[in-house]
Amino acid sequence: MDKVRRIDRLISLTKVLSDMPNYLFSLNYFCELFGTAKSTISEDILTIKQVVHQAELGTLETVSGAAGGVRFIPGKSKEAAYKVLSDLAEQLSTPERIIPGGFLYMSDVLFTPRLMVEIGEIFMNRFQKLAPDYIVTIETKGIPLAFMTARAFNLPLVIVRQGSKVTEGPSVSINYVTGSTKRIQTMSLPRRAIAAGSRVLVIDDFMKAGGTAQGIAELVQEVNSEVVGTGVLVATAEPAEKLVEDYQALLILHEVDQHTKKVDIRPAIY
Amino acid sequence: MDKVRRIDRLISLTKVLSDMPNYLFSLNYFCELFGTAKSTISEDILTIKQVVHQAELGTLETVSGAAGGVRFIPGKSKEAAYKVLSDLAEQLSTPERIIPGGFLYMSDVLFTPRLMVEIGEIFMNRFQKLAPDYIVTIETKGIPLAFMTARAFNLPLVIVRQGSKVTEGPSVSINYVTGSTKRIQTMSLPRRAIAAGSRVLVIDDFMKAGGTAQGIAELVQEVNSEVVGTGVLVATAEPAEKLVEDYQALLILHEVDQHTKKVDIRPAIY
Repeated sequence: MDKVRRIDRLISLTKVLSDMPNYLFSLNYFCELFGTAKSTISEDILTIKQVVHQAELGTLETVSGAAGGVRFIPGKSKEAAYKVLSDLAEQLSTPERIIPGGFLYMSDVLFTPRLMVEIGEIFMNRFQKLAPDYIVTIETKGIPLAFMTARAFNLPLVIVRQGSKVTEGPSVSINYVTGSTKRIQTMSLPRRAIAAGSRVLVIDDFMKAGGTAQGIAELVQEVNSEVVGTGVLVATAEPAEKLVEDYQALLILHEVDQHTKKVDIRPAIY
Repeated sequence: MDKVRRIDRLISLTKVLSDMPNYLFSLNYFCELFGTAKSTISEDILTIKQVVHQAELGTLETVSGAAGGVRFIPGKSKEAAYKVLSDLAEQLSTPERIIPGGFLYMSDVLFTPRLMVEIGEIFMNRFQKLAPDYIVTIETKGIPLAFMTARAFNLPLVIVRQGSKVTEGPSVSINYVTGSTKRIQTMSLPRRAIAAGSRVLVIDDFMKAGGTAQGIAELVQEVNSEVVGTGVLVATAEPAEKLVEDYQALLILHEVDQHTKKVDIRPAIY
């Protein structure tokens, strides 16, 4: 009977912890949930910790002290992350994806939940050390990706809007020049979206010259906060000099040739 | 030794299955992963099935036959769903949320991953029987919510854009009149985003008169597909007659009064 109950707890604990990545559960929460002693829960957690570690499914982190508890941190091996990215690069390399104007159709990939869960976890692993307070992106296509990154971090997402929106209340806005098309555009952010003095991680789907990322950094400064990192799913190889210096791309787009129907996109090497 | 291995499998299985809701894993996949016989995996799955059912964490569904396997379907009890919604209604009822013009600031809630995971699962449970092929939303604020619904269903998301976008390839577009502001606007959809003959579930954050939802339904018809259901997080009580007949709202916004600073928002009763 006791054995069965332990299995029940282990299954429920695994489910609850992995459903809420980076959320710190107090041990008391689980003691009440299962009607057991703290020492029992601690043993259960140790078991799960060893299993997820061995199976390379992530890390269970225990935080001691009164405000302590346990949280699940998703994580992949370097090889597993590389496999996700090279599969994705292959999927993006088909000639049917080339759109007149030399663009690459990526929406289907960007809007597939299973893929974005994985990309979100890869970004979280890459930027974990920066300890951001918010994930920030700009509408539209990068939102699912940025939201899954926010989920992996257990952080709020903030979406920068094109133009100004009346339904968002008082906003700050800036004009910026997109690096590639050289057009002047406006982007805005509700004042209340980011607390002053925050650390911001910018996540977007695509970077060409980096004008948008530079604009976001300026906008974040306007609310007295700081961009501590920038991650994009795809960056173009050209121009090699981007307007932001410090960014990480997961995939590099080397070439889209409308005539030869060739797409050359590969995982970035770090 | 054997006992330890069983616990290892149960923990890993729970993690893998609950990470990918509604994804059908073949039993062979797990046989190879753990190097065990099919009968052993079947027993493990039965154990997990009983535990998640008892703990009201969802359902494990086994599909027999050559193309069969096992999938995890998230699910809450009616009481748990109602609690999520009434907590959310309370959170949305604070006077600070009232924006000049009588709008309600909801972005922080809409962009909080933990909350949207729950709302996505509630929508999935409500609309499961409609067996949609795609989740469709319109930019911008409903995207995280619609994406989490897509994740719970394991379906692709399609985002309708305001205006037309050159980076999306050939598109269909329609003009529509927003029910509340009576302005003519354009919305568009890449032709390749939805296969002809598909069943579409529309998910959005807010509905007032229903003009946007009506527009999406027309746009979906243009690509020879059909809207089989519409779900919104918040619908206003007035106008009671919406432009779409068949929709479900999770919360009803009865009143936003700028003078008395009163917000009256409550879970819808079904």
